[in-house]
Amino acid sequence: MSDRPLLEQLMDALRCLPGVGAKSAQRMAFYLLERDREGGRVLSHVLDEAMERIGHCSRCRTLSEADICNYCASSKRDDSQLCVVETPAEVVAIEQATDYRGRYFVLGGHLSPLDGIGPREIGLDLFDQRLREGNISELILATNPTVEGEATAHYIGEMARARAIRVTRIAHGVPLGGELEYVDGGTLSHAFTGRRDF
Amino acid sequence: MSDRPLLEQLMDALRCLPGVGAKSAQRMAFYLLERDREGGRVLSHVLDEAMERIGHCSRCRTLSEADICNYCASSKRDDSQLCVVETPAEVVAIEQATDYRGRYFVLGGHLSPLDGIGPREIGLDLFDQRLREGNISELILATNPTVEGEATAHYIGEMARARAIRVTRIAHGVPLGGELEYVDGGTLSHAFTGRRDF
Repeated sequence: MSDRPLLEQLMDALRCLPGVGAKSAQRMAFYLLERDREGGRVLSHVLDEAMERIGHCSRCRTLSEADICNYCASSKRDDSQLCVVETPAEVVAIEQATDYRGRYFVLGGHLSPLDGIGPREIGLDLFDQRLREGNISELILATNPTVEGEATAHYIGEMARARAIRVTRIAHGVPLGGELEYVDGGTLSHAFTGRRDF
Repeated sequence: MSDRPLLEQLMDALRCLPGVGAKSAQRMAFYLLERDREGGRVLSHVLDEAMERIGHCSRCRTLSEADICNYCASSKRDDSQLCVVETPAEVVAIEQATDYRGRYFVLGGHLSPLDGIGPREIGLDLFDQRLREGNISELILATNPTVEGEATAHYIGEMARARAIRVTRIAHGVPLGGELEYVDGGTLSHAFTGRRDF
């Protein structure tokens, strides 16, 4: 460690957290030192353990302490459905909001050839192996509705179709509680094109 | 440690930080695990060091790694001025914003008899010792302009006056850039009563 004052080092280190700037870092540092040293010690310990011990599931690539994550290890989940997402946070969001109980596959990003992120970097070799196991009847594409996310969904969809697997994409449109007036044009146009019988 | 998943423990531990709720903690945990493990490790290490090694200056009670803090140890500062504040964060704020180069005394709170916080708890025995050393010619009261802060300022002011030391209080009034229309009544009334020749 450097020999700058520890307090300064602490404020700097706290800034590695997303959404934490100089002022928040200062507030956090003083708060921990003056009001909650025990909380600070616990955080330090858990953080260290987490950074060392949490890796990626060797089957679906989501974050996991064990070699195989709970979603993949569970015998209660449906092997015939596979949902592809970009990040582990999205697995958690889907688990919390939906009653989907199939399996997951986490890309860890999206295809972006200009940044050197090709099929291999997002684990499509492992994904292809999953398809080859042969028990998937529906592939649900839940990549983000961005240009790269769509391109990635298209690429993956083609891989599945080549094996005669049904491919679906989660619906995109006006969010619940949203007012048409304030929804962006792209979303509204998408919602219109994708209208369904009522 | 418990045997709950480490990821959950990490999210919980991050919530000890002020201003961090469940959603932010989740975002921070995923961010560190996926994008900045090195930052997480450094934070864990510095946090542990800071919680163990940063104590309070035995002279002014601000946060310090050494027994005597830099403000107290410096031979370049003016011994004749002593500024009393409630917290170490306020020392930093004054240092950054003003050209005050006297000494400090940090109460670590304010008098609050109902909560069991009396003169001893805010270090007034140590403070009295400082006054008895006899080289202070001006005591600057910079406690917060709250009911308790004012009461504390009054109490400390009396201690200094008993030793014939000049006592001053930082000015309170309309903040710079503030518009009269939006300033609260108490502040405006205070600013009016405290008007000065121009």
